[in-house]
Amino acid sequence: MPRTADKTDIPRRLAEAGYTLFARHGYNATGIQQITDAAGVPKGSFYNHFESKEAFAAQIIHHYAAWMDKRWQAHLADAPAAPLDTIRHLFQRFIAQHEQAACPGCLVGNFAGEVSESSEACRLAMADVMAQWRERLAGLITLAQASGSVRTDMPAAQLASFFWDTWEGAVLRMKVEHSSQPLHEALGLMLDRFFRPD
Amino acid sequence: MPRTADKTDIPRRLAEAGYTLFARHGYNATGIQQITDAAGVPKGSFYNHFESKEAFAAQIIHHYAAWMDKRWQAHLADAPAAPLDTIRHLFQRFIAQHEQAACPGCLVGNFAGEVSESSEACRLAMADVMAQWRERLAGLITLAQASGSVRTDMPAAQLASFFWDTWEGAVLRMKVEHSSQPLHEALGLMLDRFFRPD
Repeated sequence: MPRTADKTDIPRRLAEAGYTLFARHGYNATGIQQITDAAGVPKGSFYNHFESKEAFAAQIIHHYAAWMDKRWQAHLADAPAAPLDTIRHLFQRFIAQHEQAACPGCLVGNFAGEVSESSEACRLAMADVMAQWRERLAGLITLAQASGSVRTDMPAAQLASFFWDTWEGAVLRMKVEHSSQPLHEALGLMLDRFFRPD
Repeated sequence: MPRTADKTDIPRRLAEAGYTLFARHGYNATGIQQITDAAGVPKGSFYNHFESKEAFAAQIIHHYAAWMDKRWQAHLADAPAAPLDTIRHLFQRFIAQHEQAACPGCLVGNFAGEVSESSEACRLAMADVMAQWRERLAGLITLAQASGSVRTDMPAAQLASFFWDTWEGAVLRMKVEHSSQPLHEALGLMLDRFFRPD
C-alpha cells in the first residue's frame, strides 16, 4: 500500500507500515516499535488507536482486503468483457503485482500459516476475508458459466473455492521458488483445462 | 513426531522438540530456549550441534520431510492396488493425520509463508523437499495414467505440481476454518473431476 502524505493520519500511517512489515517479515518477527518507527510516529501513539498488536493485526487483515478490493475493481475496469477473459485478466494483473514486488506474497496466505493457531481474532478476520473473495470470484464464474466458457456440472461456489485454494498454494510456491511461474501455471491449468466445459 | 525414549540422543530430541514448536507456533515465535526446555537439554548443548537457529530450522525441514516419507511409505503399504485408489488412500490418510492433530498444518506450507523472504537456507530446503514430493506424486500419477484412471493429455509432472499447490492451499484454509473439509473437497475434485480422463 502506498504511503500517504497526510502526516496527521496516524491510524492510516500505522496501518500502512504494519501491512508492509507484516507482509515482508510475518507477524511474530514484527514488533510494535518497528511499526511505529516505520510509520514515523511515537510508540505511545500506537496504544491510543489499538488495544494490542493482535487487534491491530486483525484490522490490518481487513485493511489488506480493502486494498485488494480496490485493486480488484481497478483491474476489472480495464478487463475484456468476455467473462472468462475477465477472470484471466484479473489474475494476470495480480501476478504482475507479485512480479513487481508491490505485493510480497499474500498477507492472508502468510498469516494463515503463522497465526491461525495463536490468534483467534486474526483467524476469524482471515476466514471472513477469504469468504468474501470466494463469493466475489463465484460471481464472475457464474457469468462465465452462463456464457458457456466454464463447465456447468459444478456450482460456481465450488469452483471458486477450489480456485482460491490452488491460488494460495501457488503463491506459497512462488515464494519458495522465487518465481511467478507457479501462478501462471495454476491460472492456465484452471481456466484452460479443468474449468472448461466438456 | 513421537518423542524418543533414548535420553542420550540430544540432536534427535532437539529436532523433535523443534518440529513440534515450529509447527505449532511458527519460526519467529519459537526461541532456542523454548526448544531446549521442551527437549529437556541444557541451552548450551544446542550450539554443540547446530550453528544457528536458522541452520537448525533448515535441518528440521529435512527431518519433517523424512518423517513424511515414512508416513507416505506406511500409508502406501496398506493402500489398495488400483493406482487412483492408492493416491486417494494416501491423501485420505494425511487428512486423518490432520484431523487427529498429529500434524498441525504442513510445516513446509507454514514456513513457506513466514520465512521464504528472510532465510535463504530454509527457502532452499523447502524448494528441495517440495520438488521431492512433486516427483514422488508424479510417479503415482504416471501409474494412474497408464491404468486409464487419470487423463493423459497433460504430463504427470504437471498434474503433480498442480495437485500440491491445491493441497497446500487447502491445508492453509483448513487452518483458517478449523475444518478438514477443504482437504476432502480438494482431493475429491481433483481425483474425481479434473484429473479424470474425458
